[in-house]
Amino acid sequence: MELYDLEVSGNCYKIRLFLALIKQPYTLHSVDFLGGEHKNETSIERNAFGEVPVLIDGDLTLRDSQAILVYLARKFDRTDWYPTTPAEEAKVVQWLMVAESEIARGPNDARLHDKFGYELDIDMARNKSARVLDILNKHLSDRDWLELDRPTLADLACFPYVALSEEGGVSLKPYPAITDWIERIKALPDFVSMPGI
Amino acid sequence: MELYDLEVSGNCYKIRLFLALIKQPYTLHSVDFLGGEHKNETSIERNAFGEVPVLIDGDLTLRDSQAILVYLARKFDRTDWYPTTPAEEAKVVQWLMVAESEIARGPNDARLHDKFGYELDIDMARNKSARVLDILNKHLSDRDWLELDRPTLADLACFPYVALSEEGGVSLKPYPAITDWIERIKALPDFVSMPGI
Repeated sequence: MELYDLEVSGNCYKIRLFLALIKQPYTLHSVDFLGGEHKNETSIERNAFGEVPVLIDGDLTLRDSQAILVYLARKFDRTDWYPTTPAEEAKVVQWLMVAESEIARGPNDARLHDKFGYELDIDMARNKSARVLDILNKHLSDRDWLELDRPTLADLACFPYVALSEEGGVSLKPYPAITDWIERIKALPDFVSMPGI
Repeated sequence: MELYDLEVSGNCYKIRLFLALIKQPYTLHSVDFLGGEHKNETSIERNAFGEVPVLIDGDLTLRDSQAILVYLARKFDRTDWYPTTPAEEAKVVQWLMVAESEIARGPNDARLHDKFGYELDIDMARNKSARVLDILNKHLSDRDWLELDRPTLADLACFPYVALSEEGGVSLKPYPAITDWIERIKALPDFVSMPGI
């Protein structure tokens, strides 16, 4: 398996983290993001959306960090991380969608603005950050993990950009249940980190 | 099964459409959106994000249209619509994420602005619409369905807000492969429509 990767991307990091937690080897290709490598012809052929991560496994080329997490959990039969009973699976999928939507438009957008100079509506990103962090904090106030009383893809999908919130000028101080959850994830055996976490 | 629903929501519609296509009965609860019912205490207890659709099936309460599609496909064992082999499943998941992200920020946001008066960056929504529609059109130019040479949840998840693009001031005329795909979906046995489609 080959992972096209950017070190400072929380979406790439969640793939590296999951592969570390389940102890699976892979080949890392660092994409020259500043040089625009993700937008060149070869990259666009791999992923029309011109983004990383991209995973290549034999004939299969996959984009989108959440889809790659799902693939890896299925390929290595890790139903502990991604269950197959309908209700349990759907409960986890709900949070994959929060990662793809509310967290992307909140703390991730705020960080893109503050750390990488993206032109976007920073007030809206901060408002959306506060909203999703408030919901997450309430949800985590009486449980250790997002679903199923154990770490799942739900936690891994949501973790990186929440943990990186401060890089987007969003303090996690008002959200003690979130910071406790972050510490629980960091304490998982074989956890690996990234710059800013 | 009970579906908390809003007729003009493309996200609610994709659930009604899938249930019609697989011929499964359910009870529909129309939410008084203008009256703010989705934000009242009972609704927030069902879905902290204060949005529809919400599906209730016995003890299970599910939010997010993509997660609900996944649940229904699994519950009724419709691997034709949502496969279980790792590569096929992940290929479909990629498009669930496009529905949740690029289509939501593009044609869906443009429609929220034009049709429902939401305050958002309409130029950005139009730019994002053009980008995702261009990618979709290219992808569909040499195939009938988004993945696996058959209709899957990938098509159902992406279909509504693409088909509603004109309500956001985004013409589909430059995208003939998309309009052909829309017609193929509309021709599926037991297809149901919604206002604007």
